[in-house]
Amino acid sequence: MIQLYDLETKYPNVRFSPFCWRVKYALAHKGLRWEEVPIGFTDKDKLPSPNEGKVPVIVDDQEVVSDSWDIALFLDTKYPNDPLFDGAESRAQAYFIKSWSEMVLQILISRMGILDFYEVLKDSDKGYFRDTRESRSGVTLEEWGGNPESARTEFLKALEPLRVTLKHQSFLGGAQANFSDYIMVGLLQWMRCGSSLTVFDENDAVFEYQEKLLDLHDGLGRLSLPYSSAIADE
Amino acid sequence: MIQLYDLETKYPNVRFSPFCWRVKYALAHKGLRWEEVPIGFTDKDKLPSPNEGKVPVIVDDQEVVSDSWDIALFLDTKYPNDPLFDGAESRAQAYFIKSWSEMVLQILISRMGILDFYEVLKDSDKGYFRDTRESRSGVTLEEWGGNPESARTEFLKALEPLRVTLKHQSFLGGAQANFSDYIMVGLLQWMRCGSSLTVFDENDAVFEYQEKLLDLHDGLGRLSLPYSSAIADE
Repeated sequence: MIQLYDLETKYPNVRFSPFCWRVKYALAHKGLRWEEVPIGFTDKDKLPSPNEGKVPVIVDDQEVVSDSWDIALFLDTKYPNDPLFDGAESRAQAYFIKSWSEMVLQILISRMGILDFYEVLKDSDKGYFRDTRESRSGVTLEEWGGNPESARTEFLKALEPLRVTLKHQSFLGGAQANFSDYIMVGLLQWMRCGSSLTVFDENDAVFEYQEKLLDLHDGLGRLSLPYSSAIADE
Repeated sequence: MIQLYDLETKYPNVRFSPFCWRVKYALAHKGLRWEEVPIGFTDKDKLPSPNEGKVPVIVDDQEVVSDSWDIALFLDTKYPNDPLFDGAESRAQAYFIKSWSEMVLQILISRMGILDFYEVLKDSDKGYFRDTRESRSGVTLEEWGGNPESARTEFLKALEPLRVTLKHQSFLGGAQANFSDYIMVGLLQWMRCGSSLTVFDENDAVFEYQEKLLDLHDGLGRLSLPYSSAIADE
């Protein structure tokens, strides 16, 4: 069975790595089964080689593939049924959607939720997370995440192109979800499972889209507890 | 031959409608020939029916189709060779790219260039243009376009997802341009032909992309004079 190295948190049922969620949805899309190997930021030496020092990494029949985009391409080559892209153009355009999500949305989600993401990590990962993020941004986590409401306003505005698209079609992939949508559900799960934020009004088309994505593949996305439930269970 | 109703300016060789440029590139992509019918904002009564009161409108063998997106779909159905999209997913994802370009980039270009766009119009169109734009934005053209340098900074930042994509592939469509790229060239032509702005550094990947798009289909995009040459010729 395929093994997927996934980011561990301090709650066994909370997983929030946006890049690992992309891969889980890609695997489920193809009807493949997998086993998750939870691993902390500071357990990199346990990753199979070769790797880029971060999750996701999959091991499939002794082949090791890392990086969620490369894993998607690998899966479409090895398991051509139920493709993640219906052609070269949708793959190329998905790369743009990936870039948009990473350049625009990811930064805003991190500004909204970083203090929660920090809190939900295993204690042994917290020092690493703080050091790497603070050296990357040049400010403390508390400064970076200090105005979540303003980041939320920007985030909701930045989603406008997606919102307009969802008036026209069910998914970025059209009538059915494709890998572009799995890029989006990754981001949404990061926020939903890794933070206590209530970001969307329930009548926001993006909220309805999130719900549809969570329902896909037998409710795959709901297998991780949302942060608020995890905290309540403590 | 297909007729394309295109926005007229005061210079016979300057055409800047972003939506008409999308259609010209789509026609050229399919190797179709067309005849342009220049028409002003205030000549709507000369448009063939049915129409939405604006260009582009095409007439193909007595069929009238308006709206650049609907024209693209019509062309792919009637002339399936050299498709504008290689499948349903690339068409769906192109709708997202269209929405992104309209919600994010179009506003910034208009804030950069609106006073030039106004200037390049036929005198008989200026009143209509000012009235409709001012009532839409709630401010005068001069206020809307009063800080082009700040809009330019935002525009260059907003292009970052495209810039990252262009490091990975030649076009949004991948190795070859598809309709997503024609949406982009429309916007770029609007700025290049309708305004005197120098927006890009020449080593910006988006500038190189613009040049590649202008070269396509025998240099189609270069058939319209840029604003600066038109002014110089006066």
